[in-house]
Amino acid sequence: MPKAKRKPLTTNVQQSFDLQGYLARQTATVNKALAGFLPKPTTKPATIHKAMHYSLFAGGKRMRPALCLAASAACGGDESEAMPLACAVECIHTYSLIHDDLPAMDNDDYRRGKLTNHKVFGEGIAILAGDALLTQAFEIAAQARAWPRYSHKTIFLEVARASGSLQLIAGQVADVEAEGKKISTNELKYIHERKTSALLCCSARLGGMSANCTAQQLKALTDFGYNVGLAFQIIDDILDVTQTSEQLGKTAGKDTAAQKATYPSLIGLEKSRKIAKQLTDRAFASLKVFKGKAVALEALAEYLLKRNK
Amino acid sequence: MPKAKRKPLTTNVQQSFDLQGYLARQTATVNKALAGFLPKPTTKPATIHKAMHYSLFAGGKRMRPALCLAASAACGGDESEAMPLACAVECIHTYSLIHDDLPAMDNDDYRRGKLTNHKVFGEGIAILAGDALLTQAFEIAAQARAWPRYSHKTIFLEVARASGSLQLIAGQVADVEAEGKKISTNELKYIHERKTSALLCCSARLGGMSANCTAQQLKALTDFGYNVGLAFQIIDDILDVTQTSEQLGKTAGKDTAAQKATYPSLIGLEKSRKIAKQLTDRAFASLKVFKGKAVALEALAEYLLKRNK
Repeated sequence: MPKAKRKPLTTNVQQSFDLQGYLARQTATVNKALAGFLPKPTTKPATIHKAMHYSLFAGGKRMRPALCLAASAACGGDESEAMPLACAVECIHTYSLIHDDLPAMDNDDYRRGKLTNHKVFGEGIAILAGDALLTQAFEIAAQARAWPRYSHKTIFLEVARASGSLQLIAGQVADVEAEGKKISTNELKYIHERKTSALLCCSARLGGMSANCTAQQLKALTDFGYNVGLAFQIIDDILDVTQTSEQLGKTAGKDTAAQKATYPSLIGLEKSRKIAKQLTDRAFASLKVFKGKAVALEALAEYLLKRNK
Repeated sequence: MPKAKRKPLTTNVQQSFDLQGYLARQTATVNKALAGFLPKPTTKPATIHKAMHYSLFAGGKRMRPALCLAASAACGGDESEAMPLACAVECIHTYSLIHDDLPAMDNDDYRRGKLTNHKVFGEGIAILAGDALLTQAFEIAAQARAWPRYSHKTIFLEVARASGSLQLIAGQVADVEAEGKKISTNELKYIHERKTSALLCCSARLGGMSANCTAQQLKALTDFGYNVGLAFQIIDDILDVTQTSEQLGKTAGKDTAAQKATYPSLIGLEKSRKIAKQLTDRAFASLKVFKGKAVALEALAEYLLKRNK
């Protein structure tokens, strides 16, 4: 079947939409909301709350909350009603980073330019801080606005499934198990879909749900999140081999060192870049249903493709 | 203020109620339900699902599900409607054991007479198996029956708060931090309330909620669960110094070895037994509102007091 000719990726989105300003504003709002949802770092037992705050406020890009809020905006939603879900996915993302960085897993000393959680608080507290952030995510998600078609039950199932043993955790397991092994691009795609795409896709879908989106809009957000998620991980792998540790704020070249299969190692840098671009094009295409109201989502997709850290 | 004279603990509950038969039946039903809720051990990635099944089906006493189902029965509830919550709390309990047993925490090689999760699957997979069971708990809880006064939101908040950084995890943190230190009985009570009582209390409350219990019944179940939970932990501490590893199926004497503060180490064995008995008496007293319909809860409380493992 001949493929439909794709419209080339719009490259001037950022000129008409101030993404940096938008992201800075969103990050500040999300940080404030997160601080409001979490117990204070001084709350007893202080160690665990300090450890939770340490990683949650370590300067993350807040991409998942941004996706969630932008998806809500595309559906005409109220930002405050998407906020609990935006914060919940960020807690889940942060917990997964804390646990992935542990010596028993990726054994990383640095993350976002700072010492990893277990390097500061010790392994025991780092494991518990991850557990606590995961649990906190569900407590925060419970505070989301529900609708007849997107009940709390639907929302919880969405969050739990994207984070569970068939998605996010499956990705991490398969990733750890693939280390030092020769795997196919299909197997690598299986890992990326779960390790990265699942939670990004879930973030976009949750934003839509909080805005009581239509089935057509939810489908569009699913396609968008899935494709942007895959592109995001390919770019991550490309940056790992092309940037320095200083530029990334985390150890560069660690995929190669850990003999991890990546798109660049399997198919080369150029072909990897081409696929990331194709996936972003596909993500763009799915936004048509929003008839120009998805400017923030468009800008985010382009930023994720072109970022250098 | 003079204390009201307490009715002595009924000691013939087990004569009129076949607790062993009841527990065996409940355990079989709960095991079947758990197997139905979890992905099969062969589901890809098989390692994580095997690890989840390994600890979940390692012969636990299923005390939390039993409390949940007995609480539902006391309120005239339908067992099948309490089952998702009974299974959810068991997943949370199992996850907490897997993580507590890790080298970075209690460093235990045996649990329920079997090698601990990390001894079989390695630390990385054990951490992820715990994460996956915690996440699974919320997916299962989402399948509970909701009522106008006990919505999915209420149920989720109940589960998340009992398991979070102010309760279950707070207890584990305080427990780890208290090792080798001289602490007061008040501080020890703080640990027991969170490490043990919180989830037992939550189990009883969730059973009531699934049965659409009255506010008075919920209060009674809260008091019951709280007191039974404290008694349970004191008995656990007593058994740790009076039983052998073989009898317990886990390392005996480890509290003493780890220089952990326990009721026996702080106030002696006899006084500890007396307090456990008083707490059980209090738990019994709170069941009055059920007017004889809480036979299973009564039998459970007596069993937990008199158990020898």
